[in-house]
Amino acid sequence: MSMRSILTHLCACLEEGKPAILATIVDSSGSAPRSHGTRMLYCHDGRLIGTIGGGELEGKCIARARELLTGGEGHDLLHFALNAGEAAAAGMICGGNVRVLLQRLEPDAGTTALFRNLLHAFEAGASPVLLTLMPKVGTPRLLVHIPGEAAAPDLAPEFRDEVLRRVGRSDLPYTTTSAAGTVYAEPLVRPLRLHLAGAGHVALATAHLAGFLGYEVVVIDDRPEFASRERFPQACEVRVCPFDNCLGRLNGSDYVVIVTRGHLHDQEVLVQALRNGAGYIGMIGSRRKREAIYAALRQQGFSETDLDRVHSPIGLPIGGESPEEIALSIMAEIQQYRYRQSP
Amino acid sequence: MSMRSILTHLCACLEEGKPAILATIVDSSGSAPRSHGTRMLYCHDGRLIGTIGGGELEGKCIARARELLTGGEGHDLLHFALNAGEAAAAGMICGGNVRVLLQRLEPDAGTTALFRNLLHAFEAGASPVLLTLMPKVGTPRLLVHIPGEAAAPDLAPEFRDEVLRRVGRSDLPYTTTSAAGTVYAEPLVRPLRLHLAGAGHVALATAHLAGFLGYEVVVIDDRPEFASRERFPQACEVRVCPFDNCLGRLNGSDYVVIVTRGHLHDQEVLVQALRNGAGYIGMIGSRRKREAIYAALRQQGFSETDLDRVHSPIGLPIGGESPEEIALSIMAEIQQYRYRQSP
Repeated sequence: MSMRSILTHLCACLEEGKPAILATIVDSSGSAPRSHGTRMLYCHDGRLIGTIGGGELEGKCIARARELLTGGEGHDLLHFALNAGEAAAAGMICGGNVRVLLQRLEPDAGTTALFRNLLHAFEAGASPVLLTLMPKVGTPRLLVHIPGEAAAPDLAPEFRDEVLRRVGRSDLPYTTTSAAGTVYAEPLVRPLRLHLAGAGHVALATAHLAGFLGYEVVVIDDRPEFASRERFPQACEVRVCPFDNCLGRLNGSDYVVIVTRGHLHDQEVLVQALRNGAGYIGMIGSRRKREAIYAALRQQGFSETDLDRVHSPIGLPIGGESPEEIALSIMAEIQQYRYRQSP
Repeated sequence: MSMRSILTHLCACLEEGKPAILATIVDSSGSAPRSHGTRMLYCHDGRLIGTIGGGELEGKCIARARELLTGGEGHDLLHFALNAGEAAAAGMICGGNVRVLLQRLEPDAGTTALFRNLLHAFEAGASPVLLTLMPKVGTPRLLVHIPGEAAAPDLAPEFRDEVLRRVGRSDLPYTTTSAAGTVYAEPLVRPLRLHLAGAGHVALATAHLAGFLGYEVVVIDDRPEFASRERFPQACEVRVCPFDNCLGRLNGSDYVVIVTRGHLHDQEVLVQALRNGAGYIGMIGSRRKREAIYAALRQQGFSETDLDRVHSPIGLPIGGESPEEIALSIMAEIQQYRYRQSP
C-alpha cells in the first residue's frame, strides 16, 4: 500500500469530520531499512489502510489504535523487543527493537489542511517531507516541509539545518535526535511513471517487473482485449486509445517504453515521447527498423540530439529472448538511466 | 506448469495402467513463440496438468480429450481460427491459427518406457528432444532423441538431419515439414538452478525475480523462520541447514548467489561454491569485505583463477539500493553471464 493511498484515505476521513490513527514505525534497530518508515492508517470505521508487517506486532498496534480512537487520547509510542522469529514475521532481517508511534489525527481545520497540502505537493511531484517531532516532553507533532516553499518554518533550529541538509539528497526516511527530542523525517517522493505503449507479451512482463521495482505503470493500446485491467492488474492506469495521440504532457519523471505491435505505431509514439518531454525513451526492434524510423523522423525535422535521447534497440544487451528476459533487460537499462540522472 | 510436472504425472498415470491424453499446441501462426509448444495433460480421472491457455479453446480441447479417453480413439488434430479477442484470451499477440494435437497415450510397456526415459534424461540434464511425427497418412507417433545416445534411430532420414542440425543450437521448439508429413520437435532443457545462500530481504526479492525468469530456486538458511515455504512459495526447495556444508555437488548449471547475514557465512558458502563446481558465483557486500574474504581464501590455497570466478560485489552496477533493485542488478548480471557462456 503506497503513501498516496494512505494520504488519500486520511484526507477523506478528516474531511468527513472523523478522526483516524496513523501508525508509523519510527525506529527499527536491527531491521532492514524498508521497515523503517512503514505506515498504517486505522480509520474510524475499523478499516486498515497499509500494513506495518502483520502478525502480533500489528495486532497489538491495532488494539491500541482502537483504544486511542474511542478514548480520545492523542498518541502513544509502543516499544517491541522482537526475537529472531518475531522479527522475521515482521519482515525484519534479525531480532531487534521496533518503536511504533500511534497518532490520533483530529478532523480540525489545521490538521486537514496539513495533509491536504501534503497530498497536493506529493501529487504535483514536489517531493515534500513529512516530519514527526517527538519532543522529550510533550505531545508529538506533525509538520510538512515542501521544497521551494517556506523552509519548515515551525521547525526548531536544531532540527531545521539537518532537515534542509538532507532534503533532496536521499529518498530514505531518517531519524535525528537532539537534546530536545527526536525528529523522524520521511521524504515523499512520487514514484517514476512508466508509460508502456503496447500491451502484448513484452509489455505484460515489463509491467510486472516495473511494478515490482516501485514504478507507476500506465498501459496504452488501441485494442481493449489487450489493454485491460484483467491483463494488467498492477497498472495504475490502463488506457485504450489510438496510438497517434496517446501520450499527454510529460516530464523527466515520465519514462516511455515503446513496444507496440507495428513499426508505424512505434514511430507515432516515439514522435510524441520526443515532443512531449519524456525522460527515458526506449523503443523495441532491430537496428534496421530503428534506422528506418530515424530517417522518417529526420525528414520531420528531428535533430541528432533528439534521436540520441532514444534507447533503441531497447534494453541492456545481456541476452535472452523470452518476454521475461526482454523485460529484465529493459528494466536494467531504465534503472541505469535513472541513477545516472540522479546519482 | 512445467514439462517436468507433466512428465511426472504422465509417467504415474501410465505406471498405474491408465491411459492419458496429451494435448500440444503444434502450430500457432500469428502467436508469440511461447504459445507454440504449450502442453496440457488430461488424466483418466479428469485431472488437468498444465494449461494451453484457458478459455474456449481449452474448453473444446478438454471436451474432445474426454471423448478420446472414453472412446478409445488414438488421436485428433483440432484447428482453431481465432479473432484478435480470442487470441488475446489465449495469450497470443494477435489473431491467427492454432492447431492442437490430442494424443491418447496407452499404458503399454513401450509408451511407459519412452516417457520414463525422457523424464530420466531430462532430470539428468541431458536435454532430450521430444519429437511428434505427424505423417500425411497414418497415426502420429512420439519419439525421443537423447543427445549422445543413438541419434533418433526411428526417425525418417528426411527429418533426422534437420533435427540433428538444430539440437543444441536452440532451446525453442520448432516444426519441420516435408512431403512425408510434419515433425514437431520440443527440446526439453532443464532450467538452470539458482542456489540462494541466505533468506533475508535480498534473497526474497531475488527468488521472486529468478522464478519469474524461469530458474529453479533453492533457498538455504540456518534459520527456519527465514528459510520457510511461507516466505518462498515459488522456490523448488527450501533447505534449513548450517551454512558450513550446505551445497551438494554442483555443475555449470548450478548458480550460487551468496547473500547471508554475515561475512563468516558468506566465506563458508563461497569456499563450497568454488570447490563444488558451481557455474555463476556471486557474493554480496563491499569491496573491502570481498578483499578480506579473498585474503582468507588465498591462505587456504585458492588461486587467483579461482577468485576470478567470483562476481563480487554482486550485480551489474546499474544503481538502486532497495532489495528489489539489488535483485534486478543480480539477475541482470546472471543473465549476462549465462548468455556469454552459451551464445
